[in-house]
Amino acid sequence: MNLPAHVDIREVCLRDGLQIEDPIPLAAKLEILEAIVATGVKEIEATAFVSPSKVPALADAAELAAELHRFPAVEFSALVASPNGAKRAIAAGLNSIEYVVSAADSHSRANVGRSTAETTVAIADVTRIAHDSDASIEVIVATAWDCPFDGPTPQHRVLDIVSAAVDLGVDRIAVADTIGTATPKRVTELVAAVTPLLGATPLGAHFHNTRGCGLASAYAAVQAGVTRLDASVGGLGGCPFAPGASGNIATEDLVYLLRDCGIGVDVDLTAAIDAARVAQRAVGHNLPSALLRAGDRILN
Amino acid sequence: MNLPAHVDIREVCLRDGLQIEDPIPLAAKLEILEAIVATGVKEIEATAFVSPSKVPALADAAELAAELHRFPAVEFSALVASPNGAKRAIAAGLNSIEYVVSAADSHSRANVGRSTAETTVAIADVTRIAHDSDASIEVIVATAWDCPFDGPTPQHRVLDIVSAAVDLGVDRIAVADTIGTATPKRVTELVAAVTPLLGATPLGAHFHNTRGCGLASAYAAVQAGVTRLDASVGGLGGCPFAPGASGNIATEDLVYLLRDCGIGVDVDLTAAIDAARVAQRAVGHNLPSALLRAGDRILN
Repeated sequence: MNLPAHVDIREVCLRDGLQIEDPIPLAAKLEILEAIVATGVKEIEATAFVSPSKVPALADAAELAAELHRFPAVEFSALVASPNGAKRAIAAGLNSIEYVVSAADSHSRANVGRSTAETTVAIADVTRIAHDSDASIEVIVATAWDCPFDGPTPQHRVLDIVSAAVDLGVDRIAVADTIGTATPKRVTELVAAVTPLLGATPLGAHFHNTRGCGLASAYAAVQAGVTRLDASVGGLGGCPFAPGASGNIATEDLVYLLRDCGIGVDVDLTAAIDAARVAQRAVGHNLPSALLRAGDRILN
Repeated sequence: MNLPAHVDIREVCLRDGLQIEDPIPLAAKLEILEAIVATGVKEIEATAFVSPSKVPALADAAELAAELHRFPAVEFSALVASPNGAKRAIAAGLNSIEYVVSAADSHSRANVGRSTAETTVAIADVTRIAHDSDASIEVIVATAWDCPFDGPTPQHRVLDIVSAAVDLGVDRIAVADTIGTATPKRVTELVAAVTPLLGATPLGAHFHNTRGCGLASAYAAVQAGVTRLDASVGGLGGCPFAPGASGNIATEDLVYLLRDCGIGVDVDLTAAIDAARVAQRAVGHNLPSALLRAGDRILN
């Protein structure tokens, strides 16, 4: 079995996790942030610089960004959906940007009001804006497997975006299972198809557990060579298209799986469960994480 | 990728699913049974012939067994923990028996009051009792990965049971993640170690989703050559050692994953979700299945 020695986890609770929740106070976000930092995680997606009217839960992006200097050991990033968002993120002090391009046209239009082709072309602008400020830029390919409107995403649509992003010199690429429908075989296949296009560009993956397959898909990605995974403490981050369904894969569940497979991670499991509890209290409803309820296994 | 064309699912909702629930009326079990039969599943573990005082939820085993003739297309089985249980099951009309041997001594003693060695020796009696009545016998190796008391189960303890069972001529063997702690790499390793001992004896696997890794483990088992999996509609079957935690892997979630990986199953996904709803109503609390909340993906 060919497993990596280490997987980098990016904690996305504060962005993807909170995105569709009712807005919570900045102080509550900082409590979650402190608990997340205490897990030892090295990368945190802190917020998004997008339309405050579309995503009111993240309307305090600049205020939150102003607090991040308190945690100098962590690399913070912010998600953007346009060159203007990238400018706002950099003005707020972020030096790591994620730019979303949805591989499915209908989702792209619903999400950002522009086609896949238009958002792909804008990778050039976003990359220039980031690099002009010595910030790094990651392209996240959303709906990389399925679209809630268009159904299965043809693989060539993902590959076209990846090729464009590599050609334009982005620093990282990620493929995202935006609606939580991917399964291991399709993950293996897409990662295998994307990998030859990457050159030296690192590839990450982002899964939701909406249909229970998130960890199986994440493990398939790792088996296929992916060493960067997004996760959210508590599994916070329900999908708006599936009320009541699980959100992002839970950080603590992912850590449990990876560690038990002998793969190193920077995240402490007990601290991640503690952070999930803080997040659960902050949003005021039960989170779907398995470890939050069952706890770690007995380790004799 | 080397995936099988078909995986056989055994529905265990009525036994493992209901085992730790408050007892429900026979009529409610028959409603669940009818809904499960409507999924198209070919094998159903109907009940257990064990101590009614230890497992009151299954005290009506003989009464339930008397109803099974109504579903002639299904192969029904019952779980037993002793030669006496096997006799009772056969007297009640079952012709497929599962006999549990726990690989961890502490769990074995807690579960059946006898050591692993004692329960292994009794495979001979149970097999003779079954075969004398033209019934088939499966040995389920419980705590095959971890024990709630002893911690990780040394692999040789599992292999010793498997070897004994094969030598004694059992018809099938299964490895069970009794407390829901297994992860894919350890599943791959154990299946690889067990397989050379099997000869022509089919191997099944049984996973709980207590720590969120159930489907990832099930997929690892399938990748390793296992083509028989247990599952429970709704994910019914909480673990007594982890209150509130998920139970068996949910049939509908497993079907979703396998079907999306191009693997054939006899279980209809929509009917499985319907059966999960029936089971959820019967037990009167929410079940952890993901598909029960999120539904199938859009298939265009």
